Amino acid sequence: MNTTVSQLINPKILDLKAYHVPPAQGFIKLDAMENPYQWNNALQQQWLKVLERVAINRYPEPSATGIKKMLRQTMQIPDLADIILGNGSDELIQMLCLAISGKNHTLLSVEPSFVMYKMLATITGLNYVGIPLQANDFSLNLAQFLQAIEEHQPALIFLAYPNNPTGNAFQRSDIEEILKTSKGIVVIDEAYCAFAEDSFISDLPKYPNLLVMRTLSKVGLAGLRLGFLAGSADWLHEIEKTKLPYNINVLTQATVEFALQYYDVFLEQTARIKEERAKVFEMLSGFKNVKVYPSEANFILFRVENAISVFNALKDHKILIKNLHGSHPLLENCLRVTIGTPEENHAFLTALLEILK
Amino acid sequence: MNTTVSQLINPKILDLKAYHVPPAQGFIKLDAMENPYQWNNALQQQWLKVLERVAINRYPEPSATGIKKMLRQTMQIPDLADIILGNGSDELIQMLCLAISGKNHTLLSVEPSFVMYKMLATITGLNYVGIPLQANDFSLNLAQFLQAIEEHQPALIFLAYPNNPTGNAFQRSDIEEILKTSKGIVVIDEAYCAFAEDSFISDLPKYPNLLVMRTLSKVGLAGLRLGFLAGSADWLHEIEKTKLPYNINVLTQATVEFALQYYDVFLEQTARIKEERAKVFEMLSGFKNVKVYPSEANFILFRVENAISVFNALKDHKILIKNLHGSHPLLENCLRVTIGTPEENHAFLTALLEILK
Repeated sequence: MNTTVSQLINPKILDLKAYHVPPAQGFIKLDAMENPYQWNNALQQQWLKVLERVAINRYPEPSATGIKKMLRQTMQIPDLADIILGNGSDELIQMLCLAISGKNHTLLSVEPSFVMYKMLATITGLNYVGIPLQANDFSLNLAQFLQAIEEHQPALIFLAYPNNPTGNAFQRSDIEEILKTSKGIVVIDEAYCAFAEDSFISDLPKYPNLLVMRTLSKVGLAGLRLGFLAGSADWLHEIEKTKLPYNINVLTQATVEFALQYYDVFLEQTARIKEERAKVFEMLSGFKNVKVYPSEANFILFRVENAISVFNALKDHKILIKNLHGSHPLLENCLRVTIGTPEENHAFLTALLEILK
Repeated sequence: MNTTVSQLINPKILDLKAYHVPPAQGFIKLDAMENPYQWNNALQQQWLKVLERVAINRYPEPSATGIKKMLRQTMQIPDLADIILGNGSDELIQMLCLAISGKNHTLLSVEPSFVMYKMLATITGLNYVGIPLQANDFSLNLAQFLQAIEEHQPALIFLAYPNNPTGNAFQRSDIEEILKTSKGIVVIDEAYCAFAEDSFISDLPKYPNLLVMRTLSKVGLAGLRLGFLAGSADWLHEIEKTKLPYNINVLTQATVEFALQYYDVFLEQTARIKEERAKVFEMLSGFKNVKVYPSEANFILFRVENAISVFNALKDHKILIKNLHGSHPLLENCLRVTIGTPEENHAFLTALLEILK
């Protein structure tokens, strides 16, 4: 690296490793929490008809009112709440961080959780504090978390509900306690809510500092990267100032508006995924030397005796899952598998059984 | 606003006004530097066939190698240069700002120029310095600019070439002088290069601190928001760490790859726009009480006696252009019109002539 680069680039950025995504061509892809199902041909043709009418030579509508209106209906967002859209949750996390940056504020979360909370805190110059989850079941350590709120007075708290990569949902009463204690923004990241039993979306009017974040990625539109943040206008009006003016492009706007009209298709697919999750969980629980963790998401976390060798052996079987060993001390020898189609899950389970023999 | 919001949000963000985009439905839209032409039906059908094969349930390829390869060929990007993609130039400007933030660095540019340089410097906590252009012809004040480099040692310089909203291209020799003097990154923003006579893209191997930024928005794909930054790997490797992992979605990737195969269609369209620009320039130059500024972009800046009343009168004629009066002292009574189709330009000129009578 030349010396000018090292002098001018933010040292925290210099220290960062770029986010690595392994190539997946030719693999059964169970690494990224994607919905394995697509639209049927009739629906796809209808979608293409919609795209035919889109003017790709014109800038997108900056506020994407069409999507917001549809989301409000489909997701039962309370009338009082405002909405901001982002290219995936990632862009929304970045907006939130930028809005409170510059004052040496703290972002508080738990560990292990979604890696972008810490990464974007670092990139935007916030302090980051991560409170370890309980080692036995990845539940929240409420006493320690409340103490951290007292100590660091975080401007921003992120709690993934259910949590990634552990799959469990924290106790609702714990989160309510955090909402009442924190003076800063509390973002409940409901990326996996389509696979969970509970949500905070209807609690928005109750807590002025609550923001709920969701994405359409896990439900079936990972390729589009559409996320949204819902909450009180007081907060969102300021956070939106950090949004790039035309961030949601015309194809995304048209496709999401279309997809939300047929949201029942996704609901039917996610119901199938939940059924499969129960089957995979049951099978894995019967495997020797495997510890499986209950999940309310579209993936399952499990622990083996040697995660790296199991991960590599699965790759030899052309099955790609996520190796979490080395990413956090609490995830020693942990692997995460996304729930796929029955055929994909069968291939995974069969290969794993053979590998563990 | 509640007091918690005002305490926690960055005061520079609190002071910002959100970027306002006026509604344009039912107007002849000559306000946003869009290419007025679309693909013909045959090409559009071919494009839809491509989209039919896209898996929107899967995350996009993070490095979008397909687009990069095509851009390299189409735009004659030197082999030695690396490429980063963004959702429009906006996202690239944000990445550049984030990469050098946290050390009280300065972003230096000229004024008036593209407003997002200053806005994103503010959002990311950089110092911003803007050197006024010469009042008579919006040329660069080189002596003053070099003095500002000496004084502020900017980590980042942005020069739009041609400049927006003035339309002129600065002297190449002035920019070369700046490239030689600056120790920081110099970004030449070539958003309008399709309408200009010169480019710095082939100069990339000559200057280690030169980055060239372009977008496909003005050339015909404003709805997609694809921008790129080309330059030395030394810089881009660090800047890319601030990129959100899956920022370019699958529909954008597929559409841009397709569009670049038929880049000659855009070239033919931009040639037509340049011809029209000459005609509009000539007509406007003959109007009484109008001062017209030469342009190498797909818009023309002109000054009238009362910009606000002319702008509003054009709106009454259902013609939307950009009112720049009030945006910068050097733009007093200035308006900016995008070059449209011959029919749109005719409607604009006819209406303006009537208004000025």
